[in-house]
Amino acid sequence: MPANTFGEVFRLTTFGESHGPAIGGIIDGCPPGIHIDNEFIISMMRRRRPGQSHLSTPRNEEDIPEILSGVFEGVTTGTPLAFVIRNSDQRSGDYDKLKDVYRPSHADFTYEAKYGLRDHRGGGRSSARETAARVFAGAIAMLFLQRFGINIRAWVSAVGTVEAPELNEIPSLEMVESNAVRCPHPASAELMQQIILESGKAGDTLGGIISAGISGLPAGLGAPVFDKFHAELGKAMLSINAVKGFEYGSGFAGTRLPGSQHNDRFATENGKIVTTTNHSGGIQGGITNGMEVRFRLAFKPVATLMQQQKTITSKGEEATLSPGGRHDVCVLPRAVVIVEAMAALVCTDHFLRQKMYQ
Amino acid sequence: MPANTFGEVFRLTTFGESHGPAIGGIIDGCPPGIHIDNEFIISMMRRRRPGQSHLSTPRNEEDIPEILSGVFEGVTTGTPLAFVIRNSDQRSGDYDKLKDVYRPSHADFTYEAKYGLRDHRGGGRSSARETAARVFAGAIAMLFLQRFGINIRAWVSAVGTVEAPELNEIPSLEMVESNAVRCPHPASAELMQQIILESGKAGDTLGGIISAGISGLPAGLGAPVFDKFHAELGKAMLSINAVKGFEYGSGFAGTRLPGSQHNDRFATENGKIVTTTNHSGGIQGGITNGMEVRFRLAFKPVATLMQQQKTITSKGEEATLSPGGRHDVCVLPRAVVIVEAMAALVCTDHFLRQKMYQ
Amino acid sequence: MPANTFGEVFRLTTFGESHGPAIGGIIDGCPPGIHIDNEFIISMMRRRRPGQSHLSTPRNEEDIPEILSGVFEGVTTGTPLAFVIRNSDQRSGDYDKLKDVYRPSHADFTYEAKYGLRDHRGGGRSSARETAARVFAGAIAMLFLQRFGINIRAWVSAVGTVEAPELNEIPSLEMVESNAVRCPHPASAELMQQIILESGKAGDTLGGIISAGISGLPAGLGAPVFDKFHAELGKAMLSINAVKGFEYGSGFAGTRLPGSQHNDRFATENGKIVTTTNHSGGIQGGITNGMEVRFRLAFKPVATLMQQQKTITSKGEEATLSPGGRHDVCVLPRAVVIVEAMAALVCTDHFLRQKMYQ
Amino acid sequence: MPANTFGEVFRLTTFGESHGPAIGGIIDGCPPGIHIDNEFIISMMRRRRPGQSHLSTPRNEEDIPEILSGVFEGVTTGTPLAFVIRNSDQRSGDYDKLKDVYRPSHADFTYEAKYGLRDHRGGGRSSARETAARVFAGAIAMLFLQRFGINIRAWVSAVGTVEAPELNEIPSLEMVESNAVRCPHPASAELMQQIILESGKAGDTLGGIISAGISGLPAGLGAPVFDKFHAELGKAMLSINAVKGFEYGSGFAGTRLPGSQHNDRFATENGKIVTTTNHSGGIQGGITNGMEVRFRLAFKPVATLMQQQKTITSKGEEATLSPGGRHDVCVLPRAVVIVEAMAALVCTDHFLRQKMYQ
Repeated sequence: MPANTFGEVFRLTTFGESHGPAIGGIIDGCPPGIHIDNEFIISMMRRRRPGQSHLSTPRNEEDIPEILSGVFEGVTTGTPLAFVIRNSDQRSGDYDKLKDVYRPSHADFTYEAKYGLRDHRGGGRSSARETAARVFAGAIAMLFLQRFGINIRAWVSAVGTVEAPELNEIPSLEMVESNAVRCPHPASAELMQQIILESGKAGDTLGGIISAGISGLPAGLGAPVFDKFHAELGKAMLSINAVKGFEYGSGFAGTRLPGSQHNDRFATENGKIVTTTNHSGGIQGGITNGMEVRFRLAFKPVATLMQQQKTITSKGEEATLSPGGRHDVCVLPRAVVIVEAMAALVCTDHFLRQKMYQ
Repeated sequence: MPANTFGEVFRLTTFGESHGPAIGGIIDGCPPGIHIDNEFIISMMRRRRPGQSHLSTPRNEEDIPEILSGVFEGVTTGTPLAFVIRNSDQRSGDYDKLKDVYRPSHADFTYEAKYGLRDHRGGGRSSARETAARVFAGAIAMLFLQRFGINIRAWVSAVGTVEAPELNEIPSLEMVESNAVRCPHPASAELMQQIILESGKAGDTLGGIISAGISGLPAGLGAPVFDKFHAELGKAMLSINAVKGFEYGSGFAGTRLPGSQHNDRFATENGKIVTTTNHSGGIQGGITNGMEVRFRLAFKPVATLMQQQKTITSKGEEATLSPGGRHDVCVLPRAVVIVEAMAALVCTDHFLRQKMYQ
Repeated sequence: MPANTFGEVFRLTTFGESHGPAIGGIIDGCPPGIHIDNEFIISMMRRRRPGQSHLSTPRNEEDIPEILSGVFEGVTTGTPLAFVIRNSDQRSGDYDKLKDVYRPSHADFTYEAKYGLRDHRGGGRSSARETAARVFAGAIAMLFLQRFGINIRAWVSAVGTVEAPELNEIPSLEMVESNAVRCPHPASAELMQQIILESGKAGDTLGGIISAGISGLPAGLGAPVFDKFHAELGKAMLSINAVKGFEYGSGFAGTRLPGSQHNDRFATENGKIVTTTNHSGGIQGGITNGMEVRFRLAFKPVATLMQQQKTITSKGEEATLSPGGRHDVCVLPRAVVIVEAMAALVCTDHFLRQKMYQ
Repeated sequence: MPANTFGEVFRLTTFGESHGPAIGGIIDGCPPGIHIDNEFIISMMRRRRPGQSHLSTPRNEEDIPEILSGVFEGVTTGTPLAFVIRNSDQRSGDYDKLKDVYRPSHADFTYEAKYGLRDHRGGGRSSARETAARVFAGAIAMLFLQRFGINIRAWVSAVGTVEAPELNEIPSLEMVESNAVRCPHPASAELMQQIILESGKAGDTLGGIISAGISGLPAGLGAPVFDKFHAELGKAMLSINAVKGFEYGSGFAGTRLPGSQHNDRFATENGKIVTTTNHSGGIQGGITNGMEVRFRLAFKPVATLMQQQKTITSKGEEATLSPGGRHDVCVLPRAVVIVEAMAALVCTDHFLRQKMYQ
């Protein structure tokens, strides 16, 4: 029952609470021979960390991971790669008043129902701080995937009611990073930033949609029947805080098309088998077909508001929750790299699983 | 790498090809003491099997599972429960012409890319016939869950462009079964049946949406961080043939709401902690909160058309696919029970996992 | 918690009670392209089955497995390979008198303590009949291993107090099969047969030791730290009914040597790295070194005696157990092929696991 | 393929190389509510660490573990418990000369065969330093088991050719700790210490046998057929560095008895079902029966000698290995607590697994 472990061959186990000494993890099954590119890892970490733009929480942590094992002379050895990221800027005092109060749409009540007790400081284990460990592991996975020309990209495609037009081609990193909201469509990005700032002023919050694409995957990845590529990808994405939905290829919209318009016709291109459309989102029967994998995620609006809310205590008494702490109005810009990291874990795991057949 | 196994404690492993001798499975970790109610099991199997109404394929198989182990004097013993369902009506001859042709939006090409060879008869392992094993196992799981008052219900809420209004309350089995399309909203059901028959006449196919609800779950189920209740539920659903998307609670629509409208306020009701709205879909921080779990699934239109399609052979040569075989125009009415079965597997597994903390 | 599953990549899940309709299993992760050699499989099954010589129980079952999936046109497809072996000669009536009585050194009491109820007929799941499924799966594994020149051999090296001299070289199948007791040392075999017949006449039973060797394994198999090659091999062997001990290489005897005599010196032989002695038993640091893997197993004497025994009932009342049923005096000759089969599962699993690094 | 993970419910994943920055691990599935008794944990760690007596290596590390997560206000929370033990006294320079040389009966050659490269400093991952993480996790497990009256004890019963008489009763901690060699039979302990000192003077090393007992286990633990209690216990023990054999109950010696003398007769004692002898070693059919679990382990002599040895380099050239580094002559006194720790992991895991049936 490996609840804090993800993957079968490339296995990440994470640990850590928001306000404990540290978070981190162990990657077991990390292939030997990966060159640790610290600059790349730090650049991934920075895209997730708070305080990176005027849109995100001022909690300011450098999030420099320390590697404790599994690397020798800058190269992975095949033994478990453990890493630790210290929690430097904790201020747990901020949370003392939350000890006995259940914050609406947070995990306070459910953790207590599950374990009988909980670390109430900043959400404890349920805090999105935990995703920093995923980003580090995803960076290692990407260093592996890059050798094979596999490329993963996510971007913000909607914030609240502002939706950017759908992109036919996966945008470049530069396009995504060209604005603070990480939407590669500049006009929409402008609007998104505007409503985020407005929402913040009102003490309110916003959700939205992240889109993603993976190119360069070989045909053959994914393990029917239960570990279909998109089923594992979906689980990975749904395990990210605040995600409420996942669709790939034509998704929910595709349910409205008749089969004659939805089917992807096969053809050959430079001797390679391709499809002329990609409603399948690069996956057929749960196995990649060599086309781009495309998927989208729904994020709910942030549950922590900068306004008073009615709630109850653990004894069932009514209480009023006053705003406090430091929180994002909209997590999507920072979640982009988490989506990429989780996708990298799934791709690496299934890439290695497929070696059994080679 | 248990690709054909689902669950950690209540573990189902399935086997079988569409046109081999049989399909079936083993349930390991089945709790002792479950009374095998054959009538209930058969009623579940019948809701999935082909030929049950004018809307479904005439392939006519009774699908009576034979239990080979794990049951003694009508009661489960705690040892592995194995079951076999014979493939009685195979006609593999129908498929000989498909030996070297890749059917569009089917798994022919990807299975060959993965394994280097494939059983081309009727989709082999990728056929939805495999789901009969899931329904049997789901029936056993339901017999277990019923003792604790846990109830699972799915229904068709959209076919093609026809959408039924959303239901505030989970419908009864009678309401769902009151029409062939399994939509508990009679007026919509009427329209759905109409477009299915029209689509069939045109040799075309349809997709749609299945909605589902689970009531009676205790608070505390689900295992953060990677095995969140909805992440496991999502994986279970995405592993069902033709599913392209999964959302729970407010899902994709909820991304458009501000946090102040989306948050679910806590209250007490008869001494029990509840929420006054349920955008969370019964799950907070990946753990059930005791409210109804609600989710929705996107099904793509059936890939097998009753019209000619252009495609290629395994050698990359152009080919024309002529219609043949026996297929549903729309799988959703038969998929309703598969959704219920997979939900039952997830609930039972997490119910048993939670016993560790008790 | 896959209690009835063995292996990580090549995964066998077994099912079945001694007196239920059938036993069998599913091999998930079976590599595609293995040619099913029925003759070989049957020859393996025959070496395990009862009634094969004057030394074994007259229960007479042909044990012809039926393959239900995962094989197409005589070749494995990579999808789950399910198989069923019917229980043809059950006579459960023989066991009615055992319903409430705990047989000494059997699993009657412990199964009831674990599950709260039990199938009392012939030991149910705890019967060694379950090992027929292991032998079938082991035969499939051997068909895979043979391609790579990997060879597995087990033989009886002690029965009761009769010990055969240790063999420097792994004996051939012919040598092992040259007598009913499966001891490749003819003089010892003669004595062993004699004491088995004598013990049988006295209504008593015997245990003994099985030795085994594996040649042709590449260096590099085994997964530190917990899944060391010998740790997994040991678990495999200890999971066989009646096994009470496992040792590899120099084993318990080697504990008496000083390090200076025990260390295996490295050398080169035809450009290959070898050791001049093999106290390591082919495994160093939990990883194979390319030398022969050698190990030994202790089997306790059969618990079912053909003489009266005092015991108690499930209510704690004293009872006398009368002899009945059909049982071996000494299981070792029939267990030889079970040991080979389990070794084949371990080798195949780790062979496939190592492909990740290639 | 969780090679560095042990356990299904109570899951320990370890990391770390002998001469990297740190070793440590994560316990996932740790039950909430365990009070962290630092004094007890440190006392366990001290029994393993080097430099504790005149018999062990002078490498001097305090081995104080830092807990990074999963504990709040001194009590486990149910979330992953991560811990780190820094490598304070490394002196990797000692090992530079071993870069290209394969030490006899060490894992240098096999790690290189497996991963293609290796961390040559002090054995890297194959060093017994890794077991410090096991001892920490075992201490947490013991704190859990103590609540239920489960007690685990190991002791040295043979060093080289000196064997202590077998004990009918499990000795107390005081008896075991009463001498540096951890043999509760004083006269034998005296002889053992003598031959260890003599062997050390000669630059040689010794192996031996550790015996162990577990009392207070309820009947019903263990999961047939592959995860039998003794099979999992055996794997746990065989995964400890230098272990070459495992036996439980009557073990190898029991193979010489006839069934009529070996069977354990059932009886009742104060209303509890017991057996009048315990050749079964507390386990029948792979499930505990409530009697004491008894087992024994063979340890090979230490491979690092304080004398010159012939060997080869990674290029296959002959080389002479000169003594160096700091090593024990006999590891058994320090391994006693590792055996206890691994037994505690197995007991806790199966104790929690059994909750599913309650």
